[in-house]
Amino acid sequence: MTSTVVVLDAAHPGGVLADPAVPLVRIDDQGLTRGDGIFESLRAVDGRVQKFAVHHRRLSASARLAQLPVPSAQELRQAVELGLDHAAPGGDGGLGAEHSVKVVVSRGTPEAGPWSWVVVSPVPESTFRQRREGVSAVLLPRGHDPAQDAGYPWLLPGAKTLSYAINMAALRHARSLGADEAVFTAPDGRVLEGATSSVVCARVHEGVRTLVTPEPSHGILPGTTQATIFDAARGDGWELGHGPLQAADLLAADAVWLVSSVRLAVPVRRLDSRPLPVDPELTRLVTGWVARA
Amino acid sequence: MTSTVVVLDAAHPGGVLADPAVPLVRIDDQGLTRGDGIFESLRAVDGRVQKFAVHHRRLSASARLAQLPVPSAQELRQAVELGLDHAAPGGDGGLGAEHSVKVVVSRGTPEAGPWSWVVVSPVPESTFRQRREGVSAVLLPRGHDPAQDAGYPWLLPGAKTLSYAINMAALRHARSLGADEAVFTAPDGRVLEGATSSVVCARVHEGVRTLVTPEPSHGILPGTTQATIFDAARGDGWELGHGPLQAADLLAADAVWLVSSVRLAVPVRRLDSRPLPVDPELTRLVTGWVARA
Repeated sequence: MTSTVVVLDAAHPGGVLADPAVPLVRIDDQGLTRGDGIFESLRAVDGRVQKFAVHHRRLSASARLAQLPVPSAQELRQAVELGLDHAAPGGDGGLGAEHSVKVVVSRGTPEAGPWSWVVVSPVPESTFRQRREGVSAVLLPRGHDPAQDAGYPWLLPGAKTLSYAINMAALRHARSLGADEAVFTAPDGRVLEGATSSVVCARVHEGVRTLVTPEPSHGILPGTTQATIFDAARGDGWELGHGPLQAADLLAADAVWLVSSVRLAVPVRRLDSRPLPVDPELTRLVTGWVARA
Repeated sequence: MTSTVVVLDAAHPGGVLADPAVPLVRIDDQGLTRGDGIFESLRAVDGRVQKFAVHHRRLSASARLAQLPVPSAQELRQAVELGLDHAAPGGDGGLGAEHSVKVVVSRGTPEAGPWSWVVVSPVPESTFRQRREGVSAVLLPRGHDPAQDAGYPWLLPGAKTLSYAINMAALRHARSLGADEAVFTAPDGRVLEGATSSVVCARVHEGVRTLVTPEPSHGILPGTTQATIFDAARGDGWELGHGPLQAADLLAADAVWLVSSVRLAVPVRRLDSRPLPVDPELTRLVTGWVARA
């Protein structure tokens, strides 16, 4: 792993470099034994991390639900910058030197308690290829409607936890079907979110340009990249909509993207067995909104 | 931690002792970063592990859903015995020297791939106290009905994964309400399962003795201890029922237990704010069925 790791603990609230080649986590760490922790994935470009305040805010919201402490914004920023200062050269896909910055807070061991770490890695070529070439996706039922869970804080609605086994299984299932990505749907057919991304689609009709994303308050993770895109689109005179979106809406759209902090806006060029229109011009526009946010 | 750790990997398929005081897990292990792994908790008494074949079978079922490899029964048994041979003395609550044996299979790092480990620890006094004194529990809505997820293998229905953040949050919520344990309910009020246990209740009426547990096929984890208890009860002439159970059924029962491999049968003496009958004689009977299984 060509990553740089910075550990934040009681002795090092602003972080200290650690060797990523050496195991750092105890076997009884509850982040491991119970998926009991939270995380954020950030993007850095040319050594500067993006949307830091937004990510720290969402990390803090996850932490409140999970009853975990978080590093202060100042401590975390210091740790991220320490990691970036010592990172391998960023990947370059034409938008600058890019790193992914993963921030994790784990419940830790019963003895030592919670701790945090930051992992800084060059963005890989596979990510740049997805941005350029797009991905194929399949719709997979989420079983229940996650809106049913949204009212109960002990179900951690909207918290970005380490308990991602189902998301990973959905991705494996998508790949077994020959697709790259999984997009979850509710029992009523509503499109929810990608396994590790938000869904955004564009319609351009008689001069009216509209971006639509699924309802953010209905049990799906509030996407920081989707929010950034919507803010920029609003400023650019676009109409904005918040679902509900059905599969037919995606198939009728002029462009569909899976958006997330590191991948930015990845065009979906195939949904189940149906081709979707890909609009390089629109993708460039949307990518531009987030690439320098 | 007074535990013994045995690691199973490509170089040591039958396991090798590792120092539990030293970090053994890399920061990019997907068991940690994605809760992407599976586990089983077993009980050993006087150095002999119980229900080994049953646990290996459930681990294998979890592994099939999660597309993970598992050690063969022979390799895993060898690793468990190695751990038990080097373990600290077992806890003694009057039923022999007891250890918990936790078996984990993690997805591992992207580079090295899946690996497994076994952690053997003396059963703590707190567990013996729960068996003696019982616990208080609160009913907490699970939001959706997990039966809705049961038909979709990518949702890992019935797999015992490391992604337990919600179960842990439910336990914290129960404790914030002054209770020891959380029991999940479906939207229709059906009792589902404890956060880390199965629910079993007993009725004794006009000479007919009945044990009832929630429907095992409806999206809850199939309990190995519940199954052992039912097998023994059947042989002892009890009637057996498989839900649906409502809160009122638990309140009307002659005894309610949370059952799991290490804790055995823990009497529930309070449900929400209502006292439940505790029957030490029945608890001794049920415990006896599993203590020497």
